Amino acid sequence: MVKMKVSYAPSVRRLPSYLLIAKQARETGDEYISGTIIAQELNLEPIQVRKDLAITGISGKPKRGYPVEPLIHAIEAYLNWDKRVDAIVVGTGNLGSALMGFPGFRQHGLHFIAAFDVDPAKTGADKFDAPVYPMSELDDRVREMGILVAVLTVPFANAQESADRLVAAGIKAIWNFTNAKLKTPDDIVVQNEDLSSGYAMLSMKCRIRRERLA
Amino acid sequence: MVKMKVSYAPSVRRLPSYLLIAKQARETGDEYISGTIIAQELNLEPIQVRKDLAITGISGKPKRGYPVEPLIHAIEAYLNWDKRVDAIVVGTGNLGSALMGFPGFRQHGLHFIAAFDVDPAKTGADKFDAPVYPMSELDDRVREMGILVAVLTVPFANAQESADRLVAAGIKAIWNFTNAKLKTPDDIVVQNEDLSSGYAMLSMKCRIRRERLA
Repeated sequence: MVKMKVSYAPSVRRLPSYLLIAKQARETGDEYISGTIIAQELNLEPIQVRKDLAITGISGKPKRGYPVEPLIHAIEAYLNWDKRVDAIVVGTGNLGSALMGFPGFRQHGLHFIAAFDVDPAKTGADKFDAPVYPMSELDDRVREMGILVAVLTVPFANAQESADRLVAAGIKAIWNFTNAKLKTPDDIVVQNEDLSSGYAMLSMKCRIRRERLA
Repeated sequence: MVKMKVSYAPSVRRLPSYLLIAKQARETGDEYISGTIIAQELNLEPIQVRKDLAITGISGKPKRGYPVEPLIHAIEAYLNWDKRVDAIVVGTGNLGSALMGFPGFRQHGLHFIAAFDVDPAKTGADKFDAPVYPMSELDDRVREMGILVAVLTVPFANAQESADRLVAAGIKAIWNFTNAKLKTPDDIVVQNEDLSSGYAMLSMKCRIRRERLA
């Protein structure tokens, strides 16, 4: 599994929010946006905003802030979101479907060009303009299409087996929405997405709120 | 909006993974689990694991590691996951449905007891054992049920209006899956969930992989 410096992770996680705000500023015709405004919008400290954005190589100008257009380009280039990336979705239940239909991804260059499911009732018809194929065709189709990125939303029990097949077929990056801790070769990128993480954050903030009111 | 120390966030986000591993250890009958094993499982540094778990107040024993049962209790108590929390889902599209059906939440004490949707085709029947009501009934029902927590998965354009209604009806915590930066009173907890954040992490790791291969 490819590792990254853990200390970078929170900054990287916040980059999409900065990108959204920068794009909104562009829409309203602003040439600059101040770090303080960004910080207010996102409920962060201004110093945090400066540190986060510094990883993309951009720096603000005193009194004016960040130039909007270069800010957008810096974030997109840093995340490789200025290029198209094709991906497949494995498992087209509610979560897989939600991801396929999420409008944000296409704006970030991510295109779902096919999906796979074991359930014959779900295959055959297109979903959000992408064909849904039977799982039995996964290996051949991934190889033929030369796809490198897969989103995994199968049940826990099928997660490792699906990941093994994806890797064998040439997939290099797995966005894992299952709870399974996947075992993969060292050169495979795995991003584990755990919906419980967000709930942990919500729970923690509720606790802080209660303590403050107590 | 209730603030928390930003430096805590990554640790809190990782707590559910520690909890899962601790529960797996309990199932296999282990009395202790070492921080090193946990670190290996999660692809983290052992020092990071110790720091993360320290926020719950638990500490490991030299040579033996963390006592499994107290570890589980420490994490659950810290997150308030040892108590039942009732919540509603506003917007029952693919994402709202996926969240309602996600098995992990109930294990963490989170129960979706009702959902709301503007689409008459989606209301009336139960979804994952919870009734789906028309949005027009939101205000009265939230007040009657005394619900404090809401998951928001409506389209961007309806997000702020929905949040305003939720707050007026007495909701104190909003788990926001829309892209909208909600404006709420100071005493309201908002946890913004952005699926793009995970994609940013995946993109970043792919970049590191490419640089290593180059």
